[in-house]
Amino acid sequence: MSSKAEENALRYRRAQSVTTAEEITEKEKKARKSQLDKPIHKPRDSLFSWSSEFTDFTGLVNWGFLLLTVGGLRLCLENFIKYGIRVNPIEWLIVLTGYNEGDNRQYPSVILLIFCVVPAVVSLLIEKAIAVGIISPKIGVGLQIFNIVAEISLPVIVLYIKGLEFSFVGITTVCLIYLVLFLKLWSYVQTNHWCRQGMKGKQYKNTLRRQSLSAPNWNNLVNAVQEQTVEDEKAEGKSSTLVKYPDNLNLKDLFYFLLAPTLCYELNFPRTTRIRKRFLIKRIIEVVFGVNLVLALFQQWMIPSVKNAVDPFSQMSVIKITERLLKLAVPNHLIWLCLFYLSFHSFLNLMGELLHFADRNFYNDWWNANNIAQFWSTWNMPVHVWAVRHVYIPITGLGFSKASASIVVFFISAFFHEYLVSVPLQMFRIWAFLGMMAQPPLSVISKLVQAKLGARWGNIIVWSSLILGQPLAIMMYYHDYALLHFAPKQ
Amino acid sequence: MSSKAEENALRYRRAQSVTTAEEITEKEKKARKSQLDKPIHKPRDSLFSWSSEFTDFTGLVNWGFLLLTVGGLRLCLENFIKYGIRVNPIEWLIVLTGYNEGDNRQYPSVILLIFCVVPAVVSLLIEKAIAVGIISPKIGVGLQIFNIVAEISLPVIVLYIKGLEFSFVGITTVCLIYLVLFLKLWSYVQTNHWCRQGMKGKQYKNTLRRQSLSAPNWNNLVNAVQEQTVEDEKAEGKSSTLVKYPDNLNLKDLFYFLLAPTLCYELNFPRTTRIRKRFLIKRIIEVVFGVNLVLALFQQWMIPSVKNAVDPFSQMSVIKITERLLKLAVPNHLIWLCLFYLSFHSFLNLMGELLHFADRNFYNDWWNANNIAQFWSTWNMPVHVWAVRHVYIPITGLGFSKASASIVVFFISAFFHEYLVSVPLQMFRIWAFLGMMAQPPLSVISKLVQAKLGARWGNIIVWSSLILGQPLAIMMYYHDYALLHFAPKQ
Repeated sequence: MSSKAEENALRYRRAQSVTTAEEITEKEKKARKSQLDKPIHKPRDSLFSWSSEFTDFTGLVNWGFLLLTVGGLRLCLENFIKYGIRVNPIEWLIVLTGYNEGDNRQYPSVILLIFCVVPAVVSLLIEKAIAVGIISPKIGVGLQIFNIVAEISLPVIVLYIKGLEFSFVGITTVCLIYLVLFLKLWSYVQTNHWCRQGMKGKQYKNTLRRQSLSAPNWNNLVNAVQEQTVEDEKAEGKSSTLVKYPDNLNLKDLFYFLLAPTLCYELNFPRTTRIRKRFLIKRIIEVVFGVNLVLALFQQWMIPSVKNAVDPFSQMSVIKITERLLKLAVPNHLIWLCLFYLSFHSFLNLMGELLHFADRNFYNDWWNANNIAQFWSTWNMPVHVWAVRHVYIPITGLGFSKASASIVVFFISAFFHEYLVSVPLQMFRIWAFLGMMAQPPLSVISKLVQAKLGARWGNIIVWSSLILGQPLAIMMYYHDYALLHFAPKQ
Repeated sequence: MSSKAEENALRYRRAQSVTTAEEITEKEKKARKSQLDKPIHKPRDSLFSWSSEFTDFTGLVNWGFLLLTVGGLRLCLENFIKYGIRVNPIEWLIVLTGYNEGDNRQYPSVILLIFCVVPAVVSLLIEKAIAVGIISPKIGVGLQIFNIVAEISLPVIVLYIKGLEFSFVGITTVCLIYLVLFLKLWSYVQTNHWCRQGMKGKQYKNTLRRQSLSAPNWNNLVNAVQEQTVEDEKAEGKSSTLVKYPDNLNLKDLFYFLLAPTLCYELNFPRTTRIRKRFLIKRIIEVVFGVNLVLALFQQWMIPSVKNAVDPFSQMSVIKITERLLKLAVPNHLIWLCLFYLSFHSFLNLMGELLHFADRNFYNDWWNANNIAQFWSTWNMPVHVWAVRHVYIPITGLGFSKASASIVVFFISAFFHEYLVSVPLQMFRIWAFLGMMAQPPLSVISKLVQAKLGARWGNIIVWSSLILGQPLAIMMYYHDYALLHFAPKQ
């Protein structure tokens, strides 16, 4: 504080030293001091004049956040006055489980979630079959591709079997889990493929081929490979504690990977030595509290805003649409921020702590991103790392340009965004897909802005697209959904 | 930008180097690098974990201001949708001039504004009479006090003469101008008094006494004093270009002081050598544009909010009152900020430039104030400097404590705040007075907060009192005003 005061004093003196008027000579100053009328005026500029060279507006940051708080509080109160308390735990249960007294009490979501073990085990079996040489690697990889494509298609197929009633939350969870499984199995298959490729390079190829005809000899083969490997390690000075292919092909390793908070498979994950209990308890509290907070915000704030927004959209009144969009932007953005923290910090750290998984790089400092490309490569690290390792690098490795590799990554990302929205809504629009495919051109624009106007404006573009882009997509979908389902009412 | 990127990279590396898990030996790292499964996981913390030591959240400042912009835009749109366009220039003219076709076309405000020359000239005449010795200084000071008290009472007296109709804006302007004149004349009288006191100290006392009996000898006296002064100056090495008492007692000097953007009289104001035309034009544009902006904000946003706020106040519903208060806080605060810039930067700089007045210290960096005392001593420099020079220092000079001098300053300030509100509203409440008198205790609290929680929280307290205090006072007055004038309607 005293240093702040000193700074202020210094600034004040500097501000005074810049004069608009003629310089006052020392003599004159002295003369003025001995005047009887106690003069106090000195030639100096106002702080807002350019010539004052004053630039300290740190207090305005507090001002901004205070106005934001005041606005937020008022919105909360207005919401309660207008809608009363809408938070209803019983409704949550119905929405979450899809259970309703009138329903036929089938739980297709739960069955599907349990069933997802099957494609994982199938994948392991195919890998084992390739490792012991029952099937050739080429056929094996073909089977693996068929397996994961079938896996990701399963929710869509089941959804079109009539008579099954999914809750919205149920089918969304199923889609999300099946998507994560898809990405994990892709990584699992590709990583094992790399191991085989690498071993081929080291001339294990012949050993494998020779032994591949006799399946029961698998144990011998493994021993042979292991011995060879240990010798190699000794020669190369490696630590022999690391698991080597094909030792990794077992259920324990597979399930550890499926539960671990990462999408990229590797044979030896970095591990922690102990579970920090305080850390674990904090994360559990965050998850429990956070889920309730998000649900409450959703019921109390988001649903009324979205419902009120349909009419202006139908009327195509530009001013009203904009007003609704801006009104929706705030709760949507807050819920997104909560969900981000809840998923990427609380939940993934919780899983990591339980599984002794040491790499907690689930997100980077995307809030400081200066262009949209930087945002996409920092906000969701598991997917980003997966895309770089399993799509981008392999494609550039094939000799394609970096730009086309990026486009492929965004295309895949766009496809799965659409998958996550269209399947649960049972309504195939392309708003989410278009939203994702708009990112590469937006990225170019934001890089231009960053280069021309500075990093701050690049960051503002990133935040704007985040705050305004999402509610736009949500309104598009809700509008179409309402037209489809409540059309007779309008 | 590249330095920013480097910084990010550095931060990233630092974040990675802090591990939750066991340290990985160099050997193990090397071993992992030569693995076939292309491992990418490393032990590292999430950025939100305390152990990551990550603290860069600069992007959140942009986020805050963006959310503020989004909220502001939405409020604007909501306002237009709800109320249509309420800005009405004809209504402005009626409000500003008080002119209305049905009225009796008297302009008491204009007459009062012109009349304010009279007490000023009376003050000059009394000073001259003292200087030439027609009346003794004691009687002269008594007359001066009577003159300025009569001056400040005049608007109140005139207001109670029946048959005169004031427009609200007219009477407010009159009160403001008469208050400024009061402060200026106080300074004028006291400064001239200091000059006489100072001359007494130099034994001019006898000269003055001797000559005082013969009024026509005034010129001789002045010459004698001047000669004496010039001799003194030569002896003391002073510049002889400075005006000396009683040479300052003329109409030109008085009117320069009355128009100059300061409340403190002195004999030799610092002057600029030329009028900067670009600067002048900018200030003129700001004044013209700013006045219209404030009026538009007032008609479009403030008046509907205040009107809507009366009902909840009558019903004493705490939640609704709070909601209305917060809703009113935003437009009120924005208008206050506009008015601040308009008055203290644009208008006073405009006057200063026109009058070659070089001291433009009309405000200091109050937006960075860390406690309420600091805010009051920085936001309105003319009044602050006046209060220090003409109230605080004289009182402490009499041997009173600094605290009691401060209380007196706040008491006078509270009185004139009340004067500026109650007289135009013709409704004597004490909300403004109480608001000002609450400042010294609030100041103690904010200093405690600053000491305990740091400068940032002190600054937040200052902004809160500014953003929330004003609308509270406005609602109090409007509520009472509405009860008084529209009571039968309710």
